[in-house]
Amino acid sequence: MSKTDPGNYFEDFRLGQVLRHATPRTVTTGDVALYTALHGPRFALFSSSEFARACGLDQAPVDPLLTFHMVFGKTVPDISLNAVANLGYAEGVFLRAVRPGDTLSATSEVIGLKENSNRKTGVVYVRTTGVNQHGEPVLSYVRWVMVRKRSEAAEVEAQAVPSLKAAVEAADLVLPEGLDFSRYDFDLAGARHAYEDYELGERIDHVDGMAIEEAEHQMATRLYQNTAKVHFNQYERAKDPSGRRLVYGGVVISTAKALSFNGLQNAGLILGINAGRHVNPYFAGGTVFAWSQVLDKAELAPGIGALRLRLVATKDRPCADLPDKDEAGAYPAEVILDFDYWAAVPRRG
Amino acid sequence: MSKTDPGNYFEDFRLGQVLRHATPRTVTTGDVALYTALHGPRFALFSSSEFARACGLDQAPVDPLLTFHMVFGKTVPDISLNAVANLGYAEGVFLRAVRPGDTLSATSEVIGLKENSNRKTGVVYVRTTGVNQHGEPVLSYVRWVMVRKRSEAAEVEAQAVPSLKAAVEAADLVLPEGLDFSRYDFDLAGARHAYEDYELGERIDHVDGMAIEEAEHQMATRLYQNTAKVHFNQYERAKDPSGRRLVYGGVVISTAKALSFNGLQNAGLILGINAGRHVNPYFAGGTVFAWSQVLDKAELAPGIGALRLRLVATKDRPCADLPDKDEAGAYPAEVILDFDYWAAVPRRG
Amino acid sequence: MSKTDPGNYFEDFRLGQVLRHATPRTVTTGDVALYTALHGPRFALFSSSEFARACGLDQAPVDPLLTFHMVFGKTVPDISLNAVANLGYAEGVFLRAVRPGDTLSATSEVIGLKENSNRKTGVVYVRTTGVNQHGEPVLSYVRWVMVRKRSEAAEVEAQAVPSLKAAVEAADLVLPEGLDFSRYDFDLAGARHAYEDYELGERIDHVDGMAIEEAEHQMATRLYQNTAKVHFNQYERAKDPSGRRLVYGGVVISTAKALSFNGLQNAGLILGINAGRHVNPYFAGGTVFAWSQVLDKAELAPGIGALRLRLVATKDRPCADLPDKDEAGAYPAEVILDFDYWAAVPRRG
Repeated sequence: MSKTDPGNYFEDFRLGQVLRHATPRTVTTGDVALYTALHGPRFALFSSSEFARACGLDQAPVDPLLTFHMVFGKTVPDISLNAVANLGYAEGVFLRAVRPGDTLSATSEVIGLKENSNRKTGVVYVRTTGVNQHGEPVLSYVRWVMVRKRSEAAEVEAQAVPSLKAAVEAADLVLPEGLDFSRYDFDLAGARHAYEDYELGERIDHVDGMAIEEAEHQMATRLYQNTAKVHFNQYERAKDPSGRRLVYGGVVISTAKALSFNGLQNAGLILGINAGRHVNPYFAGGTVFAWSQVLDKAELAPGIGALRLRLVATKDRPCADLPDKDEAGAYPAEVILDFDYWAAVPRRG
Repeated sequence: MSKTDPGNYFEDFRLGQVLRHATPRTVTTGDVALYTALHGPRFALFSSSEFARACGLDQAPVDPLLTFHMVFGKTVPDISLNAVANLGYAEGVFLRAVRPGDTLSATSEVIGLKENSNRKTGVVYVRTTGVNQHGEPVLSYVRWVMVRKRSEAAEVEAQAVPSLKAAVEAADLVLPEGLDFSRYDFDLAGARHAYEDYELGERIDHVDGMAIEEAEHQMATRLYQNTAKVHFNQYERAKDPSGRRLVYGGVVISTAKALSFNGLQNAGLILGINAGRHVNPYFAGGTVFAWSQVLDKAELAPGIGALRLRLVATKDRPCADLPDKDEAGAYPAEVILDFDYWAAVPRRG
Repeated sequence: MSKTDPGNYFEDFRLGQVLRHATPRTVTTGDVALYTALHGPRFALFSSSEFARACGLDQAPVDPLLTFHMVFGKTVPDISLNAVANLGYAEGVFLRAVRPGDTLSATSEVIGLKENSNRKTGVVYVRTTGVNQHGEPVLSYVRWVMVRKRSEAAEVEAQAVPSLKAAVEAADLVLPEGLDFSRYDFDLAGARHAYEDYELGERIDHVDGMAIEEAEHQMATRLYQNTAKVHFNQYERAKDPSGRRLVYGGVVISTAKALSFNGLQNAGLILGINAGRHVNPYFAGGTVFAWSQVLDKAELAPGIGALRLRLVATKDRPCADLPDKDEAGAYPAEVILDFDYWAAVPRRG
């Protein structure tokens, strides 16, 4: 038996199967520093332990997206080593703050399987849970991915497509324990905009643009211990029509989120992930721009609201004209991300 | 009202105005590791907590230049988002050691305003103060920068140009509390040269050269949460005659300072910044070289002296012939930095 | 006297001479995060403090290769600044776990000197010892390197070539204090393969490939405070036939070791370095692949065995056919590393 792990093919998955992923990971302030250097976030809550304490936390928590990338990375060898495409996310909720020193590990349950009619591939749906060293869940989300079959002839008997929510309901969002925005320092956070200032449907061009280099996305993806070949193996990628390593979609999400600071300075804390699509591939060297739209609002606790936001990112195209999909749902070639999430925001009232 | 921050224009500043900058920042050993990986310093005092303890400190302090870059970064959105050029620094003093775990924040006072005769721009002078989580100042410096006007017609009534010292006086330098070089281990630090061994006017070629990659300066500049577009937005920069992202001047300063180890092994601890000019732009890929000149000497405390040093950096030109400005003050095209600072050095006597 | 350090030439070394290297270094979780981001390791023992505790340690130790690179880096200014080539390693043993917070320093004893017949160069053999802040040795290894003479005429009287072991004997390997694999979690580590599953002579293709960018090897080499010009000075390297900066061999070792996870998931902990050759130069941009061969096996303690492994790395050539030297000992041009080490592995029995 070869000791090299070939990963799972579509016919290896079973409904209800639980995969316990390898490579537990102690998160450190070193990871946080790299997250800052690689993506450029400036949200005060994650940048300053003093600011976090003034918000009722005991220290600066880890950016939920860093938690997401680390948990996601663990799932790759078991779920998507033989993937053709990452199709979507849903029902993502951050259940508990992660702090430097915490150790993350992850499991995934197969909640859906649907073979494609060509019999060469199938779609695998998993619900992944990240837990800390006390076994407490910190993150749960659903992801579906198209996976190759090892053998076209293989039969996959039990199949099912799960019904997933279009968005996490506000009532299902969980605030970090102790979070209190009553002493929130808007000036130190960078802007005065509170929950009340955002209107349903409002669109914000984040103006700034940021290029991502080959070394940067590789370092981020290694940091997250995500081993997907497309991000690293240039020898293999040279045979692809693009000839290029593909940037991990999470790098685009984190970069676009960091750019969204300019206009959403007080909406740094992601509470839930409703949906996410990597609409077009992004290769290193392109400049990422972003704009946001307010999709929904909800009051969560005294002084704390949540905005449901759509974050759209482009490559080499400024977003002053808010590039978007057309009526048929087709995106301009420069749009690379359409990401739908909930973030906590301080309320005045 | 747009929620995107347009930054301040020349006519938005007022003499005596105090700007409280956003994005407080807890400095960590992760930041220190990145500083080492990005710039290559080898000064023992910042590299080893054991060495620092033998010098009377409780642990390795953060390199003062890292503190400077972080404080500087906070000022960019308020001061220089609409800048044409960063013109100079003066009267910089490091007032207290910063240690991993400390949280930095910053304010700037407008101490000078001078409109240019073309009425399109003006020079803004600010005195910036960085403080730690106890409100204790850790750094103070003056910077002046040419800023665009929003409207040519705008009147700026109260104008004044501050009188600034040509150099910080030795008596105004502040040693980190407890600093004691009586047990200084010269071998472990890398060379035997003490205060007494440096002569006024002495010039030292630092010999070594170091290239800086696009990914490296971007990571450094993001780490410092410096958001100036010229460093990141390649799409926009492609329209500039250079077609290139400009490297943040602080990256050049830190690289040249790291190169100066070869000859100034015991002068790692910067106490003051007298002046600094980014003489020519530096773009990624060029190899940085450096040489230094001893401008002044002062005895600060028993066993501790200070050298006033000029640090000149070049791109793609070794410094064996100590390239310098000519009598008219014009610099060769390869010179990119002329930086004037005070550093602490152990004295034998 | 010039204050710039010219490094030692062959005739500056003396048999029995002990060199105390500069730049002590406190290792931090920041360094560990960068090691992960730069090389991509996934071995659970170094990734998770919880996993390390379940293995009898008090926290995740630092990867022995990170310790090696840091100790090696300190020796460069004294030993190999004027080197023509790094010729080999032998008798490497890791003597004690290094943990974040420990401070490393190093000394080297000259144990061999052999002038070449051209009188222009000679081979210097040193035994280098890395110690922690308590003066306890953490690492010892022999390295030999060809060093230029300053003057062809210089006489070097006492010469000797040390007799070195072909491999560290299993009895001389030292396990980290407290190491206990009786509760080793194979699933969390990523594979079920135990000591018993590896056969003498067995070869494993690690399949995955990873490109290394210019910024990545420079950051790693700066992190290790290794100052060899060939890695950084592009201006000088442009005159070399390759025209390229040479990647520090240690970067190739760490990358290949990280790739070896796929097949050697439970052999992360290096105990000894038997030999190592950088067979061909590696330049940034090439994709690194690797394969391993089991050379020897030894039972070290209850539940703990050691595998003696050969790790062969290539550039831009997948290793399905296990590219190797021919009968005359000549390597294919794509082979860049042949590294021989001992690693601890859990035993079932």
